[in-house]
Amino acid sequence: MPEAAGIVTGEAVGVNRYFGSLLKVDKMHDPRSHFEDAIADPAVFLDTPEELSRYGRDWTGRFQGETPLVLRPNSTEQVQALLAVCHRKGIAVVPQGGNTGLVGGSVPRNGEVVLSLSRLNAIEGFDEPSASVTVQAGTVLETLQEFLAGKGQMFPVDLGARGSCQIGGMIATNAGGIKVLRYGHMREQVLGLEVVLADGTVLSNLNRLRKNNTGLDLKQLFIGSEGILGVITRAVLRCQPAPAQRQTALLGLERVDMLPAVLMRLRAALAELSSLEFFLKGALELVCARFDDARDPFAQPHAAYVLVECESGEPASVRFHEVLAEALEDGAAADAVVAQSGAQAEALWFLREGITEAISKTGLTHKFDVTVPPGALPLFMEGIRDLAARFEGVRPVFYGHLGDGNLHLNMVQGASLADAAFRALEEEITEPVYALVVDFEGSISAEHGIGVLKRKYLGYSRTPDEIATMRAIKALLDPRGILNPGAVLEP
Amino acid sequence: MPEAAGIVTGEAVGVNRYFGSLLKVDKMHDPRSHFEDAIADPAVFLDTPEELSRYGRDWTGRFQGETPLVLRPNSTEQVQALLAVCHRKGIAVVPQGGNTGLVGGSVPRNGEVVLSLSRLNAIEGFDEPSASVTVQAGTVLETLQEFLAGKGQMFPVDLGARGSCQIGGMIATNAGGIKVLRYGHMREQVLGLEVVLADGTVLSNLNRLRKNNTGLDLKQLFIGSEGILGVITRAVLRCQPAPAQRQTALLGLERVDMLPAVLMRLRAALAELSSLEFFLKGALELVCARFDDARDPFAQPHAAYVLVECESGEPASVRFHEVLAEALEDGAAADAVVAQSGAQAEALWFLREGITEAISKTGLTHKFDVTVPPGALPLFMEGIRDLAARFEGVRPVFYGHLGDGNLHLNMVQGASLADAAFRALEEEITEPVYALVVDFEGSISAEHGIGVLKRKYLGYSRTPDEIATMRAIKALLDPRGILNPGAVLEP
Repeated sequence: MPEAAGIVTGEAVGVNRYFGSLLKVDKMHDPRSHFEDAIADPAVFLDTPEELSRYGRDWTGRFQGETPLVLRPNSTEQVQALLAVCHRKGIAVVPQGGNTGLVGGSVPRNGEVVLSLSRLNAIEGFDEPSASVTVQAGTVLETLQEFLAGKGQMFPVDLGARGSCQIGGMIATNAGGIKVLRYGHMREQVLGLEVVLADGTVLSNLNRLRKNNTGLDLKQLFIGSEGILGVITRAVLRCQPAPAQRQTALLGLERVDMLPAVLMRLRAALAELSSLEFFLKGALELVCARFDDARDPFAQPHAAYVLVECESGEPASVRFHEVLAEALEDGAAADAVVAQSGAQAEALWFLREGITEAISKTGLTHKFDVTVPPGALPLFMEGIRDLAARFEGVRPVFYGHLGDGNLHLNMVQGASLADAAFRALEEEITEPVYALVVDFEGSISAEHGIGVLKRKYLGYSRTPDEIATMRAIKALLDPRGILNPGAVLEP
Repeated sequence: MPEAAGIVTGEAVGVNRYFGSLLKVDKMHDPRSHFEDAIADPAVFLDTPEELSRYGRDWTGRFQGETPLVLRPNSTEQVQALLAVCHRKGIAVVPQGGNTGLVGGSVPRNGEVVLSLSRLNAIEGFDEPSASVTVQAGTVLETLQEFLAGKGQMFPVDLGARGSCQIGGMIATNAGGIKVLRYGHMREQVLGLEVVLADGTVLSNLNRLRKNNTGLDLKQLFIGSEGILGVITRAVLRCQPAPAQRQTALLGLERVDMLPAVLMRLRAALAELSSLEFFLKGALELVCARFDDARDPFAQPHAAYVLVECESGEPASVRFHEVLAEALEDGAAADAVVAQSGAQAEALWFLREGITEAISKTGLTHKFDVTVPPGALPLFMEGIRDLAARFEGVRPVFYGHLGDGNLHLNMVQGASLADAAFRALEEEITEPVYALVVDFEGSISAEHGIGVLKRKYLGYSRTPDEIATMRAIKALLDPRGILNPGAVLEP
């Protein structure tokens, strides 16, 4: 568990405000008994200590809690029946998809029942003319990607956890990833959605149409709601023609403050730009130091690096090379390498994607997933450097998605600082980082969401009136507060 | 008013269910007096008979109603102060932007006060690195387009009413238009939004960031809400690099059932496809018959026509010609013309954009704006032909946006049918059309919204549980029901 800066258990998170009035299932003699009238299928229930422990913690090991029972429905009807029982009896529920989140939003905290969507995982239909695919919530991203590849299509949201993360969870957290710049988040891919509300009401609108302005677009409420308003059971997603080719290059920049200009010129010049990632010198050094097969492709170090990729349905164009050549000519970039093969492209991507693991191999870290307007990124990073300098034995590592100003900032433990002392700095570091984010009109959560980890900082990004409105909507749709209590909104 | 199939006044629409408890401002001695404590600026109030009449009807002349007073705030603070008074006193309000809608959603029906956003029309800021522009709600689309053109950028939602329609209204109705295929609706362009709720609470989140997952994304609720949940006052919108070139062509197809295959192949082959419009033989004949300068570019008539346009930031590519040549070679299209100049492109576009006016010159019409999955479009149109054949003196004209299955169906009055007799057919035609839409899993409103015109048909596209949820959200955010009463949801 090298990623974790501390273990958060149910106790540490605090007791949920609804919990007093909710039934403590874990104290009952037989937790299954609550549901057996509603569901006959024994495959729905898991309650061995091993299973309860597996579903009760997240993959980083940072978040873990007790659960008396795991529910694994395999149909919308079962989800509906189970939630109706929970609503009637006041049993708190944590919906769980692939459990790959980073903010503790999908693990039990106070003895909640876990509702796993893993068995609800069929791909139900593909409609080529409308470029849409209908899937159940538990479908794993990689399974969908492979299914669509067989149809000459692709699903344009992609991220590292592709082998585990599930479509329902990705919608519930409005997942982003490395191609948001071109294709948008999960929100932009969702054409239709089926959701079960806390009381078992099914809101089903498995719309395959791109244009459908018929009253309030209710599905938007549930996208990014992190399981506090309803449980997503099925979705209709847009897909895209599979690209015939990718062109990938890495640029070296003389100065960090040249990043916004590079963003603007590449966005304007390359209509098929699909990824624009960046990392600073320290991040590249770390990857090269931690992985034997990572290699800096340049003869000299640069202050900042930009990974450029175009995805195209058309045969190779010379445009990509021309645009990069121009950037070198007029000094926008100091150096550039263009991948000549898929293997070379992968090697360049590894310099960016290996950073997280390189950091893990280095020490503990306080991780931040923030956005600032891309034009402000250089000044913001300068501010973070100044801030980090106030903490002995803490080193900032900078990388992220240049295209949308999304910085995956890591404050990494130095050799001089003991684990406990480093962990103890969490709040002391977090508060000024978020204060700086606010100064730069940024967001304290770019794509990871709020979950449990960031809920007390929500006010840094949203006004009291906005938070009050969120609470009112939560109370409207889940009046007993049974759905993912304590996530997003403070109890 | 040749477009109108009938005049709908306040009486015809019915009395709003909230209205009993709302204050009838028109019966008061001086309507301004309610607001003068809150707002000193006399420019905010209009109440001459001429002005009241102008704001009280829509541009088609179909929808009109009485209003005692027009409010024209020029700041968020004024909107806030005015709504706070309305909420406290129970005064019903119809928010009004450019008033270019087609479903009667922006005109008073029962003596409501009109809240015009026209004076709140400043462009507040442009941020090139984040490719965003901040505007007030009353900004006219064309004004924004011209502003951005001066910055080498463009706003990717475009539609015929560009000279009058306002950004706030476009967001409130989630406007679409001719480039949805590539760039999406208004929803996809909105990064940040400021909304004043019924009671004067301001929900302000003028976010410029593409990635911002911090709790419920409240702005989504107001996009497409047609003024029933809040009044949009400001927005941050995404913009795009201005395209360096456009390539435009018209294809002739042998049979209507070849449309979906053309859609699939062009979408896959042309990454920069920005418009894919279609019309059938009858529509082209009508345009050529009604306009002297409209010219069918083909030697022979075809069953269906597809207008293809690519917008590109890159210099002219030969790809466009190659793809069309392939389509001709293998018989996907029977004939094709490619515009060799801007004037030729305009002439081709006129064949598509002139259809609405050509219909107006022909007779009265019952207009439908529906979507079906694009693969089902040919069969659906066949069904509509069969249906129309049951009505003597009614002729269907087919055209729309092939890329998203959006059909602007017109049931046009024939010479044999008197105006009154034609108008009387409205319901008799509408119900089977919508029933057929439902059979084909389509939507009864693609992009025009529900307004007053379609509210009684909402149940064709949304379930009772969905409509109940919409009502609950309406009641939550506007408990006295003062905002656009009677729009979207039946009183």
